[in-house]
Amino acid sequence: MSKEPLELLESIEYPRDLRRLTPEQLPQLCRELRTFLIRELCDNPGHLASSLGAVELTVALHYVFDTPEDRIVWDVGHQAYGHKILTGRRKLFHENRKMDGLRPFPSPEESEYDTNTCGHASNSISVALGLAVAAEQQHIDRHVVAVIGDGSMSGGLAFEGLNNVSSTPNNMLIILNDNNMSIDSAVGGLKQYLHNLHTSSLYNELRNKAAMKLGDWGWMNDQRRRSILRFNNSLKSLLQGQRNIFEGLDIRYFGPEDGHDVVQLVETLRRIKDMKGPRLLHIRTTKGKGYEPAEKNPTVFHAPGRFNPETGERIKGDAEGLPPRFQDVFGHTLLALAKEDSRICGITPAMPTGCSMNILMKEMPDRAFDVGIAEGHAVTFAAGMALDGLIPFCNIYSSFAQRAYDNIIHDVAISRLHVVLCLDRAGLVGEDGATHHGAFDLAALRPIPSLTICSPLDENDLEAMMRTAAFEQNGPFVIRYPRGRRPGKATAPRPAGPSEIGHGRCLKEGRGKTAILTLGPIGNIALEAAEDTDAAVWDMRYLKPLDESILRRVAEEHERIVTVEDGVRNGGLGSAVTEWMNDRGYNIPVVRLGLPDSFVGQGTPQELYRLTGLDPDNIKQQIQ
Amino acid sequence: MSKEPLELLESIEYPRDLRRLTPEQLPQLCRELRTFLIRELCDNPGHLASSLGAVELTVALHYVFDTPEDRIVWDVGHQAYGHKILTGRRKLFHENRKMDGLRPFPSPEESEYDTNTCGHASNSISVALGLAVAAEQQHIDRHVVAVIGDGSMSGGLAFEGLNNVSSTPNNMLIILNDNNMSIDSAVGGLKQYLHNLHTSSLYNELRNKAAMKLGDWGWMNDQRRRSILRFNNSLKSLLQGQRNIFEGLDIRYFGPEDGHDVVQLVETLRRIKDMKGPRLLHIRTTKGKGYEPAEKNPTVFHAPGRFNPETGERIKGDAEGLPPRFQDVFGHTLLALAKEDSRICGITPAMPTGCSMNILMKEMPDRAFDVGIAEGHAVTFAAGMALDGLIPFCNIYSSFAQRAYDNIIHDVAISRLHVVLCLDRAGLVGEDGATHHGAFDLAALRPIPSLTICSPLDENDLEAMMRTAAFEQNGPFVIRYPRGRRPGKATAPRPAGPSEIGHGRCLKEGRGKTAILTLGPIGNIALEAAEDTDAAVWDMRYLKPLDESILRRVAEEHERIVTVEDGVRNGGLGSAVTEWMNDRGYNIPVVRLGLPDSFVGQGTPQELYRLTGLDPDNIKQQIQ
Repeated sequence: MSKEPLELLESIEYPRDLRRLTPEQLPQLCRELRTFLIRELCDNPGHLASSLGAVELTVALHYVFDTPEDRIVWDVGHQAYGHKILTGRRKLFHENRKMDGLRPFPSPEESEYDTNTCGHASNSISVALGLAVAAEQQHIDRHVVAVIGDGSMSGGLAFEGLNNVSSTPNNMLIILNDNNMSIDSAVGGLKQYLHNLHTSSLYNELRNKAAMKLGDWGWMNDQRRRSILRFNNSLKSLLQGQRNIFEGLDIRYFGPEDGHDVVQLVETLRRIKDMKGPRLLHIRTTKGKGYEPAEKNPTVFHAPGRFNPETGERIKGDAEGLPPRFQDVFGHTLLALAKEDSRICGITPAMPTGCSMNILMKEMPDRAFDVGIAEGHAVTFAAGMALDGLIPFCNIYSSFAQRAYDNIIHDVAISRLHVVLCLDRAGLVGEDGATHHGAFDLAALRPIPSLTICSPLDENDLEAMMRTAAFEQNGPFVIRYPRGRRPGKATAPRPAGPSEIGHGRCLKEGRGKTAILTLGPIGNIALEAAEDTDAAVWDMRYLKPLDESILRRVAEEHERIVTVEDGVRNGGLGSAVTEWMNDRGYNIPVVRLGLPDSFVGQGTPQELYRLTGLDPDNIKQQIQ
Repeated sequence: MSKEPLELLESIEYPRDLRRLTPEQLPQLCRELRTFLIRELCDNPGHLASSLGAVELTVALHYVFDTPEDRIVWDVGHQAYGHKILTGRRKLFHENRKMDGLRPFPSPEESEYDTNTCGHASNSISVALGLAVAAEQQHIDRHVVAVIGDGSMSGGLAFEGLNNVSSTPNNMLIILNDNNMSIDSAVGGLKQYLHNLHTSSLYNELRNKAAMKLGDWGWMNDQRRRSILRFNNSLKSLLQGQRNIFEGLDIRYFGPEDGHDVVQLVETLRRIKDMKGPRLLHIRTTKGKGYEPAEKNPTVFHAPGRFNPETGERIKGDAEGLPPRFQDVFGHTLLALAKEDSRICGITPAMPTGCSMNILMKEMPDRAFDVGIAEGHAVTFAAGMALDGLIPFCNIYSSFAQRAYDNIIHDVAISRLHVVLCLDRAGLVGEDGATHHGAFDLAALRPIPSLTICSPLDENDLEAMMRTAAFEQNGPFVIRYPRGRRPGKATAPRPAGPSEIGHGRCLKEGRGKTAILTLGPIGNIALEAAEDTDAAVWDMRYLKPLDESILRRVAEEHERIVTVEDGVRNGGLGSAVTEWMNDRGYNIPVVRLGLPDSFVGQGTPQELYRLTGLDPDNIKQQIQ
């Protein structure tokens, strides 16, 4: 990795500085931006490969469009580091994703250049259409650009947006950043479809060149646009007749174009910038572009953690003596279950590596289904499987499962189908911040009839619960667990029998005033907090059904209850316990510890648990 | 309306009886089925026009496929009355949609012919894919057919399903029932797209005929399929070059075909039934087919209520002396607000008539947006509008808003955007049953930070809350209200000033033991129940923020609290009040009345309120 100064980049604080460069200087700026990204991210982990792939696009967009007055809407925001660096945040970038530092994804609360809250996939077209309509209604002459990856394009929300784009008057530009990837490889029919567009691009090239010439000749004004469109359509029939999915939806299509040729990209954007009506520019990019290790292994370098910038070698933390990651336990247990019972299979919406379903996928490819970024479909697809006798384990990150809320209610719960929903990344996820915390799952799912809901204290418990879900239950079953490892040290694996549904257990006897009731791995922290006290600690294990024998005993033996959960306070375990005590006529106060009624930002999990009062010190204070 | 007996229809109890008919008898059966539908529905209201349009398709499907062993997956289920009548339920049909009678939509708990729970749009492809995979995994030779309307096809879930269909080995058949309608007219790019497919159908006809001839000649076996596909592709390029959206996703496309020619439909289904790989048959139908009033006005005859079968005249109940429908108040108030302030606009996902946004749409077409069946997009589109200064009123039926749960959290609440979400059909909707009750909104939305959530007691209050939402708030605002009218008699309209956020009011002073706290129109029932008692009745108006001054006063002046809400007991108003009392150290018991932790079926609202203990008698008992 070169150590030379990044002169061009350092001359740019804001896009207005960028726009003073000549087009010929842009390739150098792109090189410097890549170098900066690699230098920063090797030490200060974040999303590398997506941002490397979007360097030229980012530079070209801010060069051609008058940001922040023109609006750029990023999808997800993994690719937006270059955007941050070019919009006043280069010098703050070492605090990216840190507590009180730069936010992990674009956020209008951070910068006027960040149009919207990013984090979840596929929303950019809908947001941009709203912005375009707002400009139209207020007679503001403003460009609106949505940037969406091919992975995000497979989400239903993106399609709903496209369908509406073509029937609502607007001038928005959609840039389809096609790298054949989301976090893992893209899947589904659309992937093949986009591939076919590439291979049949000759006609489009010809047509675009013709259209641009007409523009150069001063021909391309509004009055003539319609006749030119008709001309285009004839030309199309004549030359090849391909009318692609976007054109079919009445969105003008340009491309595919090389997304790493910044000069060409600037030229194209300038040409299509002021055209009327919705347009889509399809560019091809390489995830990880310009950094060989990332190009070779874009899934690993999506968020590689710390790495040696010279070699690409990843610097792994020392896991010696630590408990296994819940993800590994999930992956291996699912494989074991699938081997034991042919009805068991796995479904993931585009997260095979993140949730470790790739373990099953590798050994039994016919039994694991990556459905693309499509959480709603993942759950309804699972419902279909369960209707005819399979036992699907559908693994979704907790905050993304919000996308499948209706599918859980309507397609699974009403019919009491045997779908096992594994909610990964539950609780506070750390550096990915507000959009990614799994804060609402317990509160949102508890009111749904016929669900069983549990959370494992530790790795042994996760395995036990997965076995219970597979073999001891014939209805919907939800298991939520966090990213990574439970707190504490590794212990010898315990044999994992099934976990009895609706039964908790005592973690620590205690005859003091206070009983602590917990759910999930945060029980380990509660246990630590209670260590030198006379408080009793109970691991409820199941939020639904509640273990009423524990509740009764606690109500009779103690004077106050402290509930501890890493979900929102309103509606989760604490609420359930308070309701139960009230309904049964017990006058025992319940101190409910959990996430506040405000969105929690980014930080290390430890920092965030302290911030939200879920650290041992605060729990200990509540005991006394 | 003819009175003659329906001899063929009456000879059929189950599809096996149907399959004994000759193809030539089928048109007569279709006529009889239509007559039966009209005779039944004119007196016993239900979904008429969709079922009339699907008569031939229904007969053809059960004639060609070996139901229930083969699986038919209906989408929504509005169109499935013919299916019910031909599958053992003709004699029970007079109890359709009634309490303890036939369910309003297909349900596997009712019949083995009902593959899955229907009600919400766009899930059929995902469910069918799950069934097809289950058959494949278990080596069962079974046909799976999804039937989806063009309206439902605009939902993102359908697209997610299509995208996955083409990358998962399966033999499913999708039937696209294209009538250019959902409940209102279909909208969006897909509508235009499908229209274009019709107008360019010559090539498809040629190709289908060629393919079928090959089949007739014994040519169409698996080994040859691939070369024939290649041949088809060449033929395509040669003839017209149209590669449509479905073919682009590697789904074989057949059609468009006349969906009212039952003999032809049977022939086509027989020919494509045993082909391998995913296929889509595009048929054109007319919503309301065969009944002139319904053909002329399919939106009105979607669910016409009672009508005169001879004339098509609708028999309206006497609304004299009744309060106005909340829908009318919403529609007129939105128009008034839009006239007052140019920032205000309306968004509806395919329900302009149902929610009365058609009032705005008619007078100010540029300010009202029907986005198709796309609840997620509706909310995110609203977020985009609000980001740049508009004030969108997004109206979604409560149970369908479950589809937008993540959009509300991620795209609206995190950024505290000024989006007004009006949840129509909240609480118990009556005859549409379990899938349509708005039971979960309060419990699911209360945990979300930065939302304001309220519900009007009456029509004046709805107007007041809409004004408050528009002008007194600069963040997300949720107003939930039921279908139809509040209980009680019409009163003179009160001037609707804004409703002060977070402030409730006393409906009835009382110095007795009990205070009743209510939210929304059900407060009228609580008030009736409390009439001859000494209980106080408070209308909280806002679930979030809670009016703490009321709670404090009630805790100090009374000995017990009864909360009354028409949402699930777990997580809503009762939970919020219980938590508050607990958190502030008040030892006052809270009796929480609300919907149970089980799905409530269909019936009249009155019957269902009694069933769930939300009738005046039970509330009165709880007071004493």
